[in-house]
Amino acid sequence: MSRRDRRSSSFASAAAVFTLFSVSAAWAQTPGPLNAITDVPGIEVGNFPLPSSDPTSPPPITGTTVVVSRAGAVGGVSQRGGAPGTRETDLLRPENLVEKVNAVVLSGGSAYGLAAADGVMLCLEAQGVGFPVGGGHVVPIVPSAILFDPGRCAAFSVRPNASFGEAACQAAKGGPVQQGNVGAGAGARSGGSKGGLGTASTVLTAGASNGIIVGAIVAVNSSGRTFDTAGNFYAGFLELGNEFPLAGPTGTDVVPPSNLLQNTTIAVVATNAKLTKAQATKVAQMADDGLARAIKPSHGVGDGDTIFVMATGTDTRDATNLVSTIGSTAADTLSRAVVHAILAATGDCRVKSYCEQFPQNCPK
Amino acid sequence: MSRRDRRSSSFASAAAVFTLFSVSAAWAQTPGPLNAITDVPGIEVGNFPLPSSDPTSPPPITGTTVVVSRAGAVGGVSQRGGAPGTRETDLLRPENLVEKVNAVVLSGGSAYGLAAADGVMLCLEAQGVGFPVGGGHVVPIVPSAILFDPGRCAAFSVRPNASFGEAACQAAKGGPVQQGNVGAGAGARSGGSKGGLGTASTVLTAGASNGIIVGAIVAVNSSGRTFDTAGNFYAGFLELGNEFPLAGPTGTDVVPPSNLLQNTTIAVVATNAKLTKAQATKVAQMADDGLARAIKPSHGVGDGDTIFVMATGTDTRDATNLVSTIGSTAADTLSRAVVHAILAATGDCRVKSYCEQFPQNCPK
Repeated sequence: MSRRDRRSSSFASAAAVFTLFSVSAAWAQTPGPLNAITDVPGIEVGNFPLPSSDPTSPPPITGTTVVVSRAGAVGGVSQRGGAPGTRETDLLRPENLVEKVNAVVLSGGSAYGLAAADGVMLCLEAQGVGFPVGGGHVVPIVPSAILFDPGRCAAFSVRPNASFGEAACQAAKGGPVQQGNVGAGAGARSGGSKGGLGTASTVLTAGASNGIIVGAIVAVNSSGRTFDTAGNFYAGFLELGNEFPLAGPTGTDVVPPSNLLQNTTIAVVATNAKLTKAQATKVAQMADDGLARAIKPSHGVGDGDTIFVMATGTDTRDATNLVSTIGSTAADTLSRAVVHAILAATGDCRVKSYCEQFPQNCPK
Repeated sequence: MSRRDRRSSSFASAAAVFTLFSVSAAWAQTPGPLNAITDVPGIEVGNFPLPSSDPTSPPPITGTTVVVSRAGAVGGVSQRGGAPGTRETDLLRPENLVEKVNAVVLSGGSAYGLAAADGVMLCLEAQGVGFPVGGGHVVPIVPSAILFDPGRCAAFSVRPNASFGEAACQAAKGGPVQQGNVGAGAGARSGGSKGGLGTASTVLTAGASNGIIVGAIVAVNSSGRTFDTAGNFYAGFLELGNEFPLAGPTGTDVVPPSNLLQNTTIAVVATNAKLTKAQATKVAQMADDGLARAIKPSHGVGDGDTIFVMATGTDTRDATNLVSTIGSTAADTLSRAVVHAILAATGDCRVKSYCEQFPQNCPK
């Protein structure tokens, strides 16, 4: 099987057509310089905890990821999984007052982990970042979603609280984003293998969409799988620029999925496009298709899958006619971020990582 | 103007028809023994802070109210105000997994006050109350909404945090419920007057609905008013059993509404009926009409009005054919709770209470 074939699955023939179209003038695209959500100007990422620099220390077992836009980004959300844990999603509905979010928090800890957003709010308030409410005061707008990971490799009581959010917010910055067993992905699992945190970006380089940047970050903690029994990623066909180090045929020693009711994949998509709240909502809905293509099944009863959108609008052109292009790009970028998450993960106390199962596909 | 007339407003003629209908066999209703949400068996209320027993102490200026169902109650929500601050409302959608909520938290503090739910979760976890997730562990299901009150009678930084939720949860019990400047109503204002916390209940006593109990609790913090310039409550016509001590004509020295963008009225309706999640959602939607009848305007851009429903199901009969009756009763009960809130409130550092403006209607 050729290297290209290994990236194929049931989506293969559709992918071939798509590839022809995607290299036409209207859709030329490349990963951004970091291939990370931080390729979108003004978007910062903070994770807590990060892996210890001491290689003998055990990896983090739960954590928090925050995506910050200090200037505020127009927000949207798609909440389609069956067991969500969320806060501040109602305000994102297009008819509601607040337009811009200052940060989105993704966290482990099941619903307990919603506390992480408290720490992010206090961190941003201290920096004067938030919705102005008079008297120089602000209320930071910080939507949040959680995933289920408690009790996997530590006591059930070990889970993110407000201090995790505070630490992640303090660590937020532009630049490269660490992936794998990091932040909200630290305790994640995916279809019987190790899940994790992944990111990706796409720069559109032709036609009316030239200059639009879309980034995604995702904590993959899915009941469904991201690759078939031969190790082919369902979203492998969406690779841009040889970003997946997939080598060749491997074995079929794949761990079966376990608990189907304690999962949830949560993500943020960011773009420099100038979107209304309604358009950001539509982009979130289209981005959700990126989970469908990368994870099978997805959006199940025990998956609280939730996708946030942050549109910074630093590209000030009217994007009305680009919403479908941005949404489609968001879906593909999110799919690729899922693959990055699985490739970057290392095994935990009980489940193997993809790279432990298919070491040929994970060159050192 | 007669005592009855004083309760009339633009709804008066509709009310007359309704009254004729409501005393017919199908709709006979009375307040419960406490005229409080705690008339619903299994429903407990906790407030923090309560007014000091020292009358020279200033009243509380912000706080948290929790409504607890230790056995779990089927949940629903209606979120129609334009500036909401919420958590765990997505899980209440009928198609999502979790059926029952263990508590609902109402809190001051704007979005910062969402932290109160963290304390309620830890309090309930310590009591073993929550959604079972294996290994004897639970995740308490605690939806929450907040209202805007920071900076009114104290520094902007004075607002509920997790400790408020913990204290309110520890204080939760059945029995009488204190109203006025209490819990989530402590810092509330309403259309230029003092707002507050109010509660009411209705027992249906005839026909198929005999034995159904509906209770409501509400923190009234509305841009809109609850009474006209002569002191007539818009919802006065919904009085049950001479519960409003309205005496006679008074002056028109009414304070005009102030800030229209920093408000929010939040409420919980509870019933002993056995409802599905979809039915509880419908009851929440109908209950929201109770705000429309009691507060004018309501559901504005700066009102994050949010109504939760908790259906305990201790009345185990199939309630399918009673949903509209329960919803209508919920609306009326909520309207009456709004009047109770305004009548029980005392003035704060800057705005007068209803009873300071219309002392004739507030006998000692």
